[in-house]
Amino acid sequence: MSEAAKTLEGWYCLHDFRLIDWTSWKMLSSDDRQTAIHEYQQFLAKLNLAHEAKEGSHAFYSVVGQKADFMLMILRPTLEELNALETEFNKLKIAEYTIPSYSYVSVVELSNYLSSDEDPYENPQIRARLYPELPKAKYVCFYPMDKRRQGEDNWYMLPMKERGALMRSHGMIGRQYAGIVKQVITGSVGFDDYEWGVTLFSDDVLQFKKLVYEMRFDEVSARYGEFGSFFVGNLMDDTKLEQMLHVN
Amino acid sequence: MSEAAKTLEGWYCLHDFRLIDWTSWKMLSSDDRQTAIHEYQQFLAKLNLAHEAKEGSHAFYSVVGQKADFMLMILRPTLEELNALETEFNKLKIAEYTIPSYSYVSVVELSNYLSSDEDPYENPQIRARLYPELPKAKYVCFYPMDKRRQGEDNWYMLPMKERGALMRSHGMIGRQYAGIVKQVITGSVGFDDYEWGVTLFSDDVLQFKKLVYEMRFDEVSARYGEFGSFFVGNLMDDTKLEQMLHVN
Amino acid sequence: MSEAAKTLEGWYCLHDFRLIDWTSWKMLSSDDRQTAIHEYQQFLAKLNLAHEAKEGSHAFYSVVGQKADFMLMILRPTLEELNALETEFNKLKIAEYTIPSYSYVSVVELSNYLSSDEDPYENPQIRARLYPELPKAKYVCFYPMDKRRQGEDNWYMLPMKERGALMRSHGMIGRQYAGIVKQVITGSVGFDDYEWGVTLFSDDVLQFKKLVYEMRFDEVSARYGEFGSFFVGNLMDDTKLEQMLHVN
Amino acid sequence: MSEAAKTLEGWYCLHDFRLIDWTSWKMLSSDDRQTAIHEYQQFLAKLNLAHEAKEGSHAFYSVVGQKADFMLMILRPTLEELNALETEFNKLKIAEYTIPSYSYVSVVELSNYLSSDEDPYENPQIRARLYPELPKAKYVCFYPMDKRRQGEDNWYMLPMKERGALMRSHGMIGRQYAGIVKQVITGSVGFDDYEWGVTLFSDDVLQFKKLVYEMRFDEVSARYGEFGSFFVGNLMDDTKLEQMLHVN
Amino acid sequence: MSEAAKTLEGWYCLHDFRLIDWTSWKMLSSDDRQTAIHEYQQFLAKLNLAHEAKEGSHAFYSVVGQKADFMLMILRPTLEELNALETEFNKLKIAEYTIPSYSYVSVVELSNYLSSDEDPYENPQIRARLYPELPKAKYVCFYPMDKRRQGEDNWYMLPMKERGALMRSHGMIGRQYAGIVKQVITGSVGFDDYEWGVTLFSDDVLQFKKLVYEMRFDEVSARYGEFGSFFVGNLMDDTKLEQMLHVN
Repeated sequence: MSEAAKTLEGWYCLHDFRLIDWTSWKMLSSDDRQTAIHEYQQFLAKLNLAHEAKEGSHAFYSVVGQKADFMLMILRPTLEELNALETEFNKLKIAEYTIPSYSYVSVVELSNYLSSDEDPYENPQIRARLYPELPKAKYVCFYPMDKRRQGEDNWYMLPMKERGALMRSHGMIGRQYAGIVKQVITGSVGFDDYEWGVTLFSDDVLQFKKLVYEMRFDEVSARYGEFGSFFVGNLMDDTKLEQMLHVN
Repeated sequence: MSEAAKTLEGWYCLHDFRLIDWTSWKMLSSDDRQTAIHEYQQFLAKLNLAHEAKEGSHAFYSVVGQKADFMLMILRPTLEELNALETEFNKLKIAEYTIPSYSYVSVVELSNYLSSDEDPYENPQIRARLYPELPKAKYVCFYPMDKRRQGEDNWYMLPMKERGALMRSHGMIGRQYAGIVKQVITGSVGFDDYEWGVTLFSDDVLQFKKLVYEMRFDEVSARYGEFGSFFVGNLMDDTKLEQMLHVN
Repeated sequence: MSEAAKTLEGWYCLHDFRLIDWTSWKMLSSDDRQTAIHEYQQFLAKLNLAHEAKEGSHAFYSVVGQKADFMLMILRPTLEELNALETEFNKLKIAEYTIPSYSYVSVVELSNYLSSDEDPYENPQIRARLYPELPKAKYVCFYPMDKRRQGEDNWYMLPMKERGALMRSHGMIGRQYAGIVKQVITGSVGFDDYEWGVTLFSDDVLQFKKLVYEMRFDEVSARYGEFGSFFVGNLMDDTKLEQMLHVN
Repeated sequence: MSEAAKTLEGWYCLHDFRLIDWTSWKMLSSDDRQTAIHEYQQFLAKLNLAHEAKEGSHAFYSVVGQKADFMLMILRPTLEELNALETEFNKLKIAEYTIPSYSYVSVVELSNYLSSDEDPYENPQIRARLYPELPKAKYVCFYPMDKRRQGEDNWYMLPMKERGALMRSHGMIGRQYAGIVKQVITGSVGFDDYEWGVTLFSDDVLQFKKLVYEMRFDEVSARYGEFGSFFVGNLMDDTKLEQMLHVN
Repeated sequence: MSEAAKTLEGWYCLHDFRLIDWTSWKMLSSDDRQTAIHEYQQFLAKLNLAHEAKEGSHAFYSVVGQKADFMLMILRPTLEELNALETEFNKLKIAEYTIPSYSYVSVVELSNYLSSDEDPYENPQIRARLYPELPKAKYVCFYPMDKRRQGEDNWYMLPMKERGALMRSHGMIGRQYAGIVKQVITGSVGFDDYEWGVTLFSDDVLQFKKLVYEMRFDEVSARYGEFGSFFVGNLMDDTKLEQMLHVN
């Protein structure tokens, strides 16, 4: 019997991080900048329509530090739709004034260590997690991660029962943050360089630090977690986007 | 006696990943873009002729995320032909509007842990795998990999018999996906930075995730697999290429 | 009970490292350069006002070597303010003549291995450390760091009591440098790629070397410290900035 | 007594890998391209004269994949001559249309695990290996490598006798390829980032794969080898160079 | 008692590696190139004055391979002077035709494992090593290094006595090269990414290889050495600089 725990998959997910090329952006005339911003807002408005129609969801944040200026996270039912939106963005005027800095391809995933008789895809609570409406929380945190396979610390050599027990205790930490930090776990095995992407949403940015730090002492992270880059950002909306891109 | 298992080799293989330089592409006149697309399509048509004549094969996919915009995987009988096609592409107009982002040089390989009396190169089933017609599956997944040589987890220090047994059980997982995921294994020892390239084709992109994840719990991957970057993409054809490169 | 030690957090922190693009800077007319310097000085003057109003603090240093030409470290009560200042800088004329080379996002942190009854946020000594006035010391040193999780040397698997004892002895070294080297520890778990940023200030640059070297023999660093890049620099002020940017 | 085995050194060696900047190359007029090619061919002809006069040798290959478009490997009696040829190339017109992508500095080396009474530098067979005429084989393979120093697998902590025995058995594999693969080993301790460069020449490119793969199971490579990037290429001559650089 | 051995520090040190941007350099008129070279030579002449006045020292070498075209190593009493010279170079015309490729910030260091009663800073032999006149040797070799902290091989967990014994035996190898290779050790703990920089000078470039290789078998390097990039180069003077930068 396969040692791989059953997983459930929902919407496909693209995290797209971009830097603004300020020097060339400032060279544009004020009118051309306004046209580019307006076209960009129309693109974002279209994403909102899909969100409202529950045909997908997205999150748009500015990113602090030099790793990126903004992050657009998009959820859609197929990989083709993500690819099409990526291309659509690249054809926008604004795209010419941005520099790609990082991206992540994954799919919303629920790990299903506890088996059950019902069809999980019919369960409304599970559906809500597989096809999530991304919240308009004030802050976002994203990082990719792997389970370690190193000498004595090899997650994939543990018996499934032990992994299950470890994950349950790990999940307890997350549950303490219920209502404070929303976690969206996306799986990227076969899709991108790490095995999972973690996207956290909260109205209190300090909770990201507290949650990730507390988890680090849990055996699942302490012995078996390998982390990629961390990105942290502030919620963007049309007004903030205009302020950010406004040049005197 | 050599501890290296006998391998069979077929066509040479080049994976070429490119980003589109959208800013300069948009600067071209509509006519010049159309000319460049047309010339590119003629290049692809020539590849199709070789495919039909069974003098090689290729696969053309768009790639999701910022790692690349498209991937062209080409199989040919000699390294010189791959080099010539690479140069031919570089001389196309379209090439001026692309940025190389990754490539991989390898050769189709079958590992032959079970010995036999017949000449494998005369066996039609083996020939079909050494000189494969790459399928027009909806999705592709590519990643390079190594067998680990680290402390207690050193593949190359295992007795051949143990390696053989491990690989057979590993192969069983792959076989469960027969008809769902087509795997093309190419060897790159002495040719590129990893030891193998793995290219997967499927009409159901989720199967890449399930296959790679299930394999990760198998001892061959769990203890001995080291993985490079993962690329995932959607099938391209002439129409999709035109749509992708079309600018209003 | 959680194994994570309680931490206290103060102001959010952005370290921003920039290179000067000398070739394009020299192409500017002398007048345009002067205008850009003056506008930059006004930005720095505004930071000084916040510092004086105790609504934040900052440190401005030139950096030796090719990693950066200057470092601006800014402390503010919210992540939004850091993001806004970052964007404000990007809109300055001078920004067009700089190249981002590194940044670090964190929050001033006190680890609180010894528990106490009082509310630490009411303690004036603790407040002075959580909301520090960065000194105008002649030299600065910055580096990010992690606690190691590797085989037998896994900080996060140690019992809290042992970590507490190790940290106390580690802190003793720092205390020997009291009055000579000011240390500002900022936490970046969930915010950036390392777990902490360390910023040292001193009027004697050799003391950075002595302090870091002495600590390296302490078990906390020797067995459990993983260090990122080190940056060292000289204090900047308006006059030095003008000298540095002056071109004949 | 020193544990370092005695080594013999011959000619200094520079591997220089370059990409062609096709976009700017195509912008040149046909005449200017022809002039640049001709000047380049004169440079190569001068290298041929040195080769014929046995004052050095060189090898010129196109490289498959995006790591480089061509590799020029030059052997000379002094480091100054290599430096001068490098500068001479940089002043050629063609150099303006190339992008450096990798280089390696080393010196032809024979390890001398078996001691002897004679002066090895007087032995004609040894001289032929220290001052080799690089062959015009159809294919080249280059990679740099280290001997591992990691935990239990520390080459430099082995007794000299054990290293000698391991190297002899390792050398046996190489000898099986005598007449099929020519190996040039160059030492780079103190000169470049790895300890050795390995350049293989063959008329059958598959033999690189077979040789390197077979060696990987030998304890010297399996436990003690650390490998850098692999480059593989096709022989270039004046005609092929013109074809490669020809633009319609 | 601190486990850190006492160290003595002398002049601050900046190694600055640059590539020449040949394409733009060749675009300059012959007169403009001559003016730039002349201005550069005046800068170097000023460095010579400081050297003669024993207010510092420097070494100027061309570098072989693509990592750099030249290396300027400067010693000065303060970090501010190094910073000022760096900025002065950046304002030279020649700087516009160079690309920074690597730098290293450190301070001349003597480790003092043997204690003594006298004030070492008054000892003329020690002063000569802390404030060295860099020789005009034909060749230079530079590399940064760390002492390893990995599992069983953790330098910083060894008792001071054992470290002292290991270093003495290590130093014996260096002493065998007295008069053949001059070693300048600079400490960079707290200043740059490695813990030490090693700069070797010799009239026989092969001696770098022999010295570093022999040391690699010594336990200090074999078990505890971690090495960065190696740079090797040829002595530059005014005439060679003109030849190198001369374009027909």
